[in-house]
Amino acid sequence: MVVILKPKTKQEDVNKMVSYIKDMGLDVMVNKGVDCTVLGLLGDTSKIDPDTLMLNVHVDRVMRIAEPFKKASRKFHPDPSVIKVDNVEIGKEGEFTVIAGPCSVESEAQIIDVAQSVKKSGAKMLRGGAFKPRTSPYSFQGLELEGLKLLKEAKEKTGLPIVTEIMSPKMVEIFDKDVDLIQVGARNMQNFDLLKELGNTKKPVLLKRGLSSTIEEWLMSAEYILASGNPNVVLCERGIRTFETYTRNTLDLSAIPAIKRLSHLPVIVDPSHSAGMSWMVEPLSLAAMTVGADGLIVEVHNCPEKAWCDGAQSLDKKQFENMMNKMKAIGVHVGKKI
Amino acid sequence: MVVILKPKTKQEDVNKMVSYIKDMGLDVMVNKGVDCTVLGLLGDTSKIDPDTLMLNVHVDRVMRIAEPFKKASRKFHPDPSVIKVDNVEIGKEGEFTVIAGPCSVESEAQIIDVAQSVKKSGAKMLRGGAFKPRTSPYSFQGLELEGLKLLKEAKEKTGLPIVTEIMSPKMVEIFDKDVDLIQVGARNMQNFDLLKELGNTKKPVLLKRGLSSTIEEWLMSAEYILASGNPNVVLCERGIRTFETYTRNTLDLSAIPAIKRLSHLPVIVDPSHSAGMSWMVEPLSLAAMTVGADGLIVEVHNCPEKAWCDGAQSLDKKQFENMMNKMKAIGVHVGKKI
Amino acid sequence: MVVILKPKTKQEDVNKMVSYIKDMGLDVMVNKGVDCTVLGLLGDTSKIDPDTLMLNVHVDRVMRIAEPFKKASRKFHPDPSVIKVDNVEIGKEGEFTVIAGPCSVESEAQIIDVAQSVKKSGAKMLRGGAFKPRTSPYSFQGLELEGLKLLKEAKEKTGLPIVTEIMSPKMVEIFDKDVDLIQVGARNMQNFDLLKELGNTKKPVLLKRGLSSTIEEWLMSAEYILASGNPNVVLCERGIRTFETYTRNTLDLSAIPAIKRLSHLPVIVDPSHSAGMSWMVEPLSLAAMTVGADGLIVEVHNCPEKAWCDGAQSLDKKQFENMMNKMKAIGVHVGKKI
Amino acid sequence: MVVILKPKTKQEDVNKMVSYIKDMGLDVMVNKGVDCTVLGLLGDTSKIDPDTLMLNVHVDRVMRIAEPFKKASRKFHPDPSVIKVDNVEIGKEGEFTVIAGPCSVESEAQIIDVAQSVKKSGAKMLRGGAFKPRTSPYSFQGLELEGLKLLKEAKEKTGLPIVTEIMSPKMVEIFDKDVDLIQVGARNMQNFDLLKELGNTKKPVLLKRGLSSTIEEWLMSAEYILASGNPNVVLCERGIRTFETYTRNTLDLSAIPAIKRLSHLPVIVDPSHSAGMSWMVEPLSLAAMTVGADGLIVEVHNCPEKAWCDGAQSLDKKQFENMMNKMKAIGVHVGKKI
Repeated sequence: MVVILKPKTKQEDVNKMVSYIKDMGLDVMVNKGVDCTVLGLLGDTSKIDPDTLMLNVHVDRVMRIAEPFKKASRKFHPDPSVIKVDNVEIGKEGEFTVIAGPCSVESEAQIIDVAQSVKKSGAKMLRGGAFKPRTSPYSFQGLELEGLKLLKEAKEKTGLPIVTEIMSPKMVEIFDKDVDLIQVGARNMQNFDLLKELGNTKKPVLLKRGLSSTIEEWLMSAEYILASGNPNVVLCERGIRTFETYTRNTLDLSAIPAIKRLSHLPVIVDPSHSAGMSWMVEPLSLAAMTVGADGLIVEVHNCPEKAWCDGAQSLDKKQFENMMNKMKAIGVHVGKKI
Repeated sequence: MVVILKPKTKQEDVNKMVSYIKDMGLDVMVNKGVDCTVLGLLGDTSKIDPDTLMLNVHVDRVMRIAEPFKKASRKFHPDPSVIKVDNVEIGKEGEFTVIAGPCSVESEAQIIDVAQSVKKSGAKMLRGGAFKPRTSPYSFQGLELEGLKLLKEAKEKTGLPIVTEIMSPKMVEIFDKDVDLIQVGARNMQNFDLLKELGNTKKPVLLKRGLSSTIEEWLMSAEYILASGNPNVVLCERGIRTFETYTRNTLDLSAIPAIKRLSHLPVIVDPSHSAGMSWMVEPLSLAAMTVGADGLIVEVHNCPEKAWCDGAQSLDKKQFENMMNKMKAIGVHVGKKI
Repeated sequence: MVVILKPKTKQEDVNKMVSYIKDMGLDVMVNKGVDCTVLGLLGDTSKIDPDTLMLNVHVDRVMRIAEPFKKASRKFHPDPSVIKVDNVEIGKEGEFTVIAGPCSVESEAQIIDVAQSVKKSGAKMLRGGAFKPRTSPYSFQGLELEGLKLLKEAKEKTGLPIVTEIMSPKMVEIFDKDVDLIQVGARNMQNFDLLKELGNTKKPVLLKRGLSSTIEEWLMSAEYILASGNPNVVLCERGIRTFETYTRNTLDLSAIPAIKRLSHLPVIVDPSHSAGMSWMVEPLSLAAMTVGADGLIVEVHNCPEKAWCDGAQSLDKKQFENMMNKMKAIGVHVGKKI
Repeated sequence: MVVILKPKTKQEDVNKMVSYIKDMGLDVMVNKGVDCTVLGLLGDTSKIDPDTLMLNVHVDRVMRIAEPFKKASRKFHPDPSVIKVDNVEIGKEGEFTVIAGPCSVESEAQIIDVAQSVKKSGAKMLRGGAFKPRTSPYSFQGLELEGLKLLKEAKEKTGLPIVTEIMSPKMVEIFDKDVDLIQVGARNMQNFDLLKELGNTKKPVLLKRGLSSTIEEWLMSAEYILASGNPNVVLCERGIRTFETYTRNTLDLSAIPAIKRLSHLPVIVDPSHSAGMSWMVEPLSLAAMTVGADGLIVEVHNCPEKAWCDGAQSLDKKQFENMMNKMKAIGVHVGKKI
């Protein structure tokens, strides 16, 4: 950590700062510059809060050099983590895990139909919304517990582990019992109370990136779960909020190699929610694979006779199958088996 | 609501759409354009989910014309709402309510000292963090319940209603009992489960704007509380996330006149967290008053003998007093009494 | 185009608006809603300026339904455009064009060395900065005309067409004579005077996306060149400005399928400037190919004996060769030949 | 400047770096941390390009501590600069300068009518667009030279110095002769060629902030003009691009106190373009004054008999007069005379 003092800070005040920092068990190097003095803090600064240092009248700025995350950092855990979800492993060298399913669980027929179909195409897990975070209180909020029940039935029928979103710490107990991979949505990425409670379980957590969260903040949220004792975290890039309005969000694929370098945790991509348009799902999915992601979570809708298939952002079963076939071919050349 | 159909949509499909929409109890006008057909939906579209319409293969885009919020809208509630917090009213014509206090509750001496001081300067409520949302699990998380206890003591000593942040639905009962104005932080603005539970109380809620929430999403979160039956919502602009890094966040003061036009709810400004620098608090506070806000929530730190006063973003007691005096003078000319 | 009138607009004012719009040669449909009246403008609205309509006191909002661009639009030009740059074609079905070279032209030895090397690896054009847009007036501004001269020598030696950035309308004549593909940088994407002058030539233009330009604004800048009579425009996505600071910019790969759907112009990707880190160039390049781009423009640095190779964002010659080999293999499966 | 080396950098490579930096005439302090070594560069680092240091394979990151701008910096020029525009001074202690006029110059009658009216209300300069930067090539591009002629006539009639936007280096000579304050628009803030040419004149320049420019980049663009020898720069905040779409841009009023602290240059605010809605102009203008700006540039439209007054973002003459009266009253309490 580097502490930049304000110009013209008196020597006695510099000394005060230095001894204050040494009292925290750190070593300090004093760099006397032309405009100002810069203190180099040497030692484990991970537990030091820059805001506390900013409290000193003589401090101009504090710059962190070491990363604020430890357990999520690749520095101290060079080998990639492989997260076991029921009978499936995510993050395994040379494998690419695809999670697929409908946006919302609607009925037993629907969820089982989609589950069997995506399994046939190569999906390894089933996704489906039971509790839905909706911007409007007047929008459909999901089938809730009934939805969970239907997901479990689909699992019995297909053997696919189930992935669904949790929205409240009050549900942790039930999800821990019934869900294989508990999804924390973008809006709850910094719901620290929820993260802590999930950290007290051993259940794998799919942590989506917040709409306006930096990569560092995202890893700090993972750190909350890891620090509470649960090592089973899978990250998911799902698009960030930018000024561009043509796409609902801007999928930040650069975040994948960044995560791979900064952390040992697996990271997958959600190409459905970011774009918000079904015709963009395939190109973004191929790009996610070649950019280095460990997998995908994709929306696939069943297509009954009525005109209401082809969800705004969902692929139908045939489109999904075609996409999977393309990915299997490309995977060979980037060392990713589906 | 306007539904734009894809170019070359067949007449029979247009007719299908029209009757589908009419089945929802709406009237439809068909605008045959050169490139495409546009459907004008007439009637109460507030309960219609655009995503559902997007599910139709022939729909290109859906544009909302009426606002998605009803109870928060000024259209159906032309008079400004005045929210009663204990003995204080926020949003009253001609008044400007200042809430002040330390970032975190640290000790009985500290909180009472600050409370008495800000009261003398004209503050009407006391703020103080007991449960702290921190990006890092290793940072100080607040005194929690002990902090609540100290806030209550400060209230007994000064009569100032207390404002503090809630972080979990599990705490709603305790907060409902002990806190006068329950703050929902930026990170929890779309913690819908928490919003619903607060909607089931009658306790005033201070709803901070999310870091990357649009004004519409912010009002939709207020709508969650209102729709659940709690009419006592006060909005708080605290800065949004942009590319600019000099300030921690970008205070969006344009949002104040916007809220005043769109909604009847009172809106206050937090000049401390947005800037993150104490020397910016005064100018931003004066701007907040003249741009039309109903009040402020400001961080004020006590200043013991040690050098550790002048918090990065907090005013000391003297700076706060000076600022309040300036605001009283300016208030006269914008019709705002402190 | 849809014009939403303010609530309670009098019938006579509605009539005024309608006849005003009809005077512009358009047909109007009047949709009387519950809250407000909506006018549907039928006909060619491309030349109508929404701001002019907003000038009317009774207009609340104007929503465009047709795209504002015509010549750049795929609607009126369904087949993809193939742009001929000297002896190379960009945008040709089944081909992937790679442009490579150093950030700045430094010397004859350097530019020729890099040119020969990237040609061997499969690059079809040579890039190199002669006039450099620098944030600081104190940074190296490029070799300017001397740099152009060296690029021409490299072309003579290798036959590779040259791509370099123009920074002023005053240079159009020289660039038209000496450069094969004239690059307009992100900072000049809305330098309309420059765009018009380039529109008066027939020389191919590589139009980079502005740092905070929407896809629509980007295509409108292309429209400036096309409308002035030059049909030879190649678009280049190079990252947009967001709140994320880990990467210098956020590469918006979703923009590629978006452009493919909206326009007939070829679009390539710059993976070097967006990330700003050489180790991210390969994954982003593979992603660019699989997401559907027509090519790449990549920075490749020569590596003399001194330690100063491995530019912050440049690949060295060996890294570039390896990347090209991977891309050739993957290309087979996405129908892109290098 | 602080240079962070990659973990495990060998001592010999550290020594290489140190001597390399010393060769640039700087002193170096070596901070050996636990994870990595940090070099503190002591001396005048303003002319050092961080990118050049990043070129070294052993460098992880480079952090600038001193500001990159010198001539624009308050550090080396503690007293605020007062810029003389014809007979008007901007940036003078205790004064607030208002520039007003129509968006576009339309006719002699219009511009003279508006000029006389805004002068009566207290405006000190006349603005009016002659050359218009328009997103669409099909939108009205301004009266161009004819517009300049009309502005000069308005100046003769009223004595108000004129402010209008330049769009090309080719126009510098004419603008230098005819215009009193040459405006560089947001889209051209990093049109470095234009900045350099304006730096070769002595004519005052109104430099608008780019839509996605940081405060530092903005000051670096001012540095281009100052470094070329023209000290007469006035900055103008006009809103930045964010995810919020209710307002056209987000007016960043925090930038005003920031500029006041970082630089000695005067800074004014444009409340018309940022909001894009006339009813927001007054509150934002009052806020601009109280937050510490040196003035305003406001759009005022004349209001003929036809319905086409009340421009989307322009005040009419009466609204402007009322606003000016309020500002005169408030100015007294913030020490700003209009």
